Amino acid sequence: MEYCRYGYDCLDSIDCANMDRSMPLDEHSVGLVTVQTQHFDQPLELACGRTLLQYDLVYETYGKLNSDQSNAILICHALSGHHHAAGYHSEDDPKPGWWDGYIGPGKPIDSNEFYIVSLNNIGGCHGSTGPLSINLETGKPWQSDFPTLRCRDWVNSQRQLMKVLGISQWAAIIGGSLGGMQAMRWSLEYPDELRHCVIIASALKLTAQNIAFNEVARQAISSDPNFHEGYYLDHDVIPKQGLRLARMVGHITYLSEDGMGEKFGRELKNGTFSLGSNEDIEFQIESYLRHQGEVFSTSFDANTYMLMTKALDFFDLAREYGDDPVEAFKNAKCSFLVVSFTTDWRFAPERSREIVDALIAAKKPVSYAEIEANFGHDAFLIPNKRYQNVFHAYMQRVAREIIGEPSNAV
Amino acid sequence: MEYCRYGYDCLDSIDCANMDRSMPLDEHSVGLVTVQTQHFDQPLELACGRTLLQYDLVYETYGKLNSDQSNAILICHALSGHHHAAGYHSEDDPKPGWWDGYIGPGKPIDSNEFYIVSLNNIGGCHGSTGPLSINLETGKPWQSDFPTLRCRDWVNSQRQLMKVLGISQWAAIIGGSLGGMQAMRWSLEYPDELRHCVIIASALKLTAQNIAFNEVARQAISSDPNFHEGYYLDHDVIPKQGLRLARMVGHITYLSEDGMGEKFGRELKNGTFSLGSNEDIEFQIESYLRHQGEVFSTSFDANTYMLMTKALDFFDLAREYGDDPVEAFKNAKCSFLVVSFTTDWRFAPERSREIVDALIAAKKPVSYAEIEANFGHDAFLIPNKRYQNVFHAYMQRVAREIIGEPSNAV
Repeated sequence: MEYCRYGYDCLDSIDCANMDRSMPLDEHSVGLVTVQTQHFDQPLELACGRTLLQYDLVYETYGKLNSDQSNAILICHALSGHHHAAGYHSEDDPKPGWWDGYIGPGKPIDSNEFYIVSLNNIGGCHGSTGPLSINLETGKPWQSDFPTLRCRDWVNSQRQLMKVLGISQWAAIIGGSLGGMQAMRWSLEYPDELRHCVIIASALKLTAQNIAFNEVARQAISSDPNFHEGYYLDHDVIPKQGLRLARMVGHITYLSEDGMGEKFGRELKNGTFSLGSNEDIEFQIESYLRHQGEVFSTSFDANTYMLMTKALDFFDLAREYGDDPVEAFKNAKCSFLVVSFTTDWRFAPERSREIVDALIAAKKPVSYAEIEANFGHDAFLIPNKRYQNVFHAYMQRVAREIIGEPSNAV
Repeated sequence: MEYCRYGYDCLDSIDCANMDRSMPLDEHSVGLVTVQTQHFDQPLELACGRTLLQYDLVYETYGKLNSDQSNAILICHALSGHHHAAGYHSEDDPKPGWWDGYIGPGKPIDSNEFYIVSLNNIGGCHGSTGPLSINLETGKPWQSDFPTLRCRDWVNSQRQLMKVLGISQWAAIIGGSLGGMQAMRWSLEYPDELRHCVIIASALKLTAQNIAFNEVARQAISSDPNFHEGYYLDHDVIPKQGLRLARMVGHITYLSEDGMGEKFGRELKNGTFSLGSNEDIEFQIESYLRHQGEVFSTSFDANTYMLMTKALDFFDLAREYGDDPVEAFKNAKCSFLVVSFTTDWRFAPERSREIVDALIAAKKPVSYAEIEANFGHDAFLIPNKRYQNVFHAYMQRVAREIIGEPSNAV
């Protein structure tokens, strides 16, 4: 099995070929997985006041649902994520799902213990209803007329899938970054329907700087002449340059300064200072960023990017609780695990400590781990011994609490 | 006198109307200043191997050159700076030069004591020969055929101006950011021609992250369909969208996260969450960034931006000294003042400490001040009591050393 040079997922900016994955893939992989699609005819009322009359959710599951349906785990994805979190789609699939390092037999989210559900959110561009889907009222793709979404819309649609799957309570809801925001929102909106909430590299709300970076990304997309106010499919084009730039900005900010320095330093692409034109690529970091932008620009939908970043900007857990996160968390009934990474500067440890402080003040059970890691925000996706151990120990506790005695699987 | 809402210079991202300027403008201003132009017929050989057969430098001077020409100060500008560092161009000029807070009677760079020379570097877009100028060999504007520049080219052209002005040694060369790089290069190339070197918010070389941000800015410009590989004047257009994006990225990174948070927080533009389209402006920070990008895109030349950022990326003080800054600084003969700002993350205090450590190891006289400031990299332009005091004290020392007894001007 060979890894792609640029990481095992479009979410990931790290060259995983250089990383110690520590667990062999064969016995610890969920193996071949199949994408499933669930159609919903029941309308979904959205926070913006509009209604999705019908929609599809694509999802994957790993592991088996137990007889009392108590071992189900929901994975909420981040900005550019999707349903394919673990395993392979075919024998010759070059790379596994985006969180394969953490989902599988013997891994922190252990498929021997849990029934793991991972979906693509509405508004996405990987199969669930989104801007690329046909709006049945017009017979044409939604494009930028797709309704504005908020985190709670994802929570509500995830809950419809939950019902279809016959689950009345999640053993845990787990998410990193924007996924962590969905997990937190679940804990307030449907407090009886989850036992544990795992919030990784997330925040109660974005900072102005974070909003600013998202705004630059959106501006890059919307000022691309091929954007056509979001109706680019009508013109048979995509705003490729805008997406490239958006992704390049994203990449820089998801990596740590030190991680980037260690990986690229000031290494020259051709080993020499060419003193060529001002457009030449001379540093490795430039070449890497251009490659990342290029890959993303042909694999992700621009309207989805606009919509996801807006949902991220607008998320503010405590807004409707008098701007008091303690008041907000008083509604929760689950236990919490919060994880942050030392070099993550877009969702800094300080942001996670705000979550933890509010949970403590709200007298909720909470465990917190601040993980020494060199990969910035992307650290939540990358193998890391301490992170794996902490996460695994917590999830084993969840398993014991729900299932009883240790299984022999681990 | 009224200030523009968005700072007193295009280099500056701070709303100066909210700031305590502490010194009234009238008695501490250099007053009305005139732009001068010096034409050079003597060819300038450039680091890239090409030669500028002739060129112009525009500059301003503040204060008077003393009889032994010992009180001259050279100001080196940063990425988007220019010659107009202090004073006003007319009675109704809405704003002073970009470093007016630090240059003038009684200010740190005291025009009662010093003869201050501030020029626009070659390659610039404010009057000195650059991509907008006519290439006499073709009779057409240079545009992107303008030669690639390195810091040492600026040093060499500044030195030609120095000769014309009858100065054989600078009392001090002072620069912030890219300007600090020029000051350092002077100290190695022409060690006998400066007595003091003041390096503010600078670095021995850029980090990979810093190069990456510059690369995104360049990509934004070069992927603008109006860029035409830099020959946009031939098409009677400018790559306005690209420049806007480049400036927006720049702005975010020149400000500190806390400063941005304090200034904008998550304040909403219309006071309410409109849940409108994904392209709507909803946060103040978005509106501010768009305004900044807009202003810059119509006032700065894209080819100059490409050229300046490349020079910034390539600067590496110690490259030709076996990558050892101590070896490099052994060539210097001047004294040094190094200043950094606590919240500057593009030219972090750590980078300044690397300069200081190398200077100490090279046994050079050096003073270092790490200033508590909330404005990120832009702090070097902004009034700040401790920075003013430290800078003023150092420059008074320079004045005493050169001129003798204290004047009554302060």
